[in-house]
Amino acid sequence: MHIAATTKAEQFTRIPRAEEIVRTPGAAYVHMTSNNTIYGTEWKDLPAVDDAPLVSDTSSDMFSRPIDVAKHGIIYAGAQKNMGPAGVTVVIIREDLLARSSASLPVMLSYAVHAENGSMYNTPPVFAIYMLGLVTRWLIDQGGLASVAAVNERKAGKLYAEIDRTGFYRGTAQKESRSLMNVTFRLPTEDLEKQFVKEAEKAGLDGLKGHRSVGGIRASIYNAFPEAGIDALTEFMKEYERRNG
Amino acid sequence: MHIAATTKAEQFTRIPRAEEIVRTPGAAYVHMTSNNTIYGTEWKDLPAVDDAPLVSDTSSDMFSRPIDVAKHGIIYAGAQKNMGPAGVTVVIIREDLLARSSASLPVMLSYAVHAENGSMYNTPPVFAIYMLGLVTRWLIDQGGLASVAAVNERKAGKLYAEIDRTGFYRGTAQKESRSLMNVTFRLPTEDLEKQFVKEAEKAGLDGLKGHRSVGGIRASIYNAFPEAGIDALTEFMKEYERRNG
Repeated sequence: MHIAATTKAEQFTRIPRAEEIVRTPGAAYVHMTSNNTIYGTEWKDLPAVDDAPLVSDTSSDMFSRPIDVAKHGIIYAGAQKNMGPAGVTVVIIREDLLARSSASLPVMLSYAVHAENGSMYNTPPVFAIYMLGLVTRWLIDQGGLASVAAVNERKAGKLYAEIDRTGFYRGTAQKESRSLMNVTFRLPTEDLEKQFVKEAEKAGLDGLKGHRSVGGIRASIYNAFPEAGIDALTEFMKEYERRNG
Repeated sequence: MHIAATTKAEQFTRIPRAEEIVRTPGAAYVHMTSNNTIYGTEWKDLPAVDDAPLVSDTSSDMFSRPIDVAKHGIIYAGAQKNMGPAGVTVVIIREDLLARSSASLPVMLSYAVHAENGSMYNTPPVFAIYMLGLVTRWLIDQGGLASVAAVNERKAGKLYAEIDRTGFYRGTAQKESRSLMNVTFRLPTEDLEKQFVKEAEKAGLDGLKGHRSVGGIRASIYNAFPEAGIDALTEFMKEYERRNG
């Protein structure tokens, strides 16, 4: 494995810039993850990759915005963020790449086997697939992914505006890399963060504790999270700052 | 792979008898499938295996009757017959066998990795697991697997009695190997079978067509299939024979 780019030195607070990406000639593929749920960062534009297939794990932002399928070799995404219940993974693969499924792979891990059998080599998880179908129709009813992306921009925008309003809250991701799905921020002290999570929960705003590996606050605002919830959270943030700022 | 026993010469109409089983000295394990959904056969007693771990695929009769866990090295079962929705597999493994998970296995296929991580190495299929929990409680409320087995014996017994009542219906599995889960039988002609399936469906009795590889009729009467459905089917069978016998 060759690391084409990393922002580890900046604690992963941003997505690598185009000029930082070092390509490996003859690479079998280039892998990326479109959205980082822990650090709250998200690729805005796809990296320019034309001599190797781009493979993208889009588990945490699939269906949140349009995606340029043609620029990918493989897109794969666990359903459990925006698409449906955990237990099904959507894979979109360029047909010629199926030939690369090694014959020595266990069959359940072979994309070629799944493709040849219409995704029914195994007994498929029918309930999860059915739910994914319902969610897909719901997205279409909302005007498709362009409309959904506009809603997500507005939802995240309100939250980032509140974070940036004063110095009390501090966004952890650099502005150009901010995720529309996971909004991460800090308060002046860890004690204030603990208290924030506790009081928010009492106010009906659940699950705001940051990932255990980084701490802080994280608002995960996937498609299913309503805009009214964003409004309630920003109201709570204002109020909390008033009392503790 | 060494085949310890097969009844292929009898078109798999029965389970091998104890004296037919040829063991391979030094075998890493012995594999069996407790119930055959296609041929409608089921092991009544476990084969005597004491010098190698017994590995049993119990996908189609798990939770239908008590099972002697201690006699197994591994029991594995997809949930979709008696336990819950498709998409989760229950594995019971003897602790010392975990050490046999090869380090070269892809992690998702390593029982050792799943055991070390409390079955949460991956994002677990929470809905399917939750349903499995509800079904388990439902089984306990019914008095546990001994009570459930008694119901299954009664359900299958009524159906086999109807099959044996005259010569019109003919059970495909030999009597000592008959499955409590999948009751397979034939009618005098294939045309009568086609008509049987069609008329049964009109009468609200669905899914009676045998597996495509063997034809005939198959009544799959898993735990969730109500005894009243058995009564309706036997009534229909009597009536159909009266008209066509």
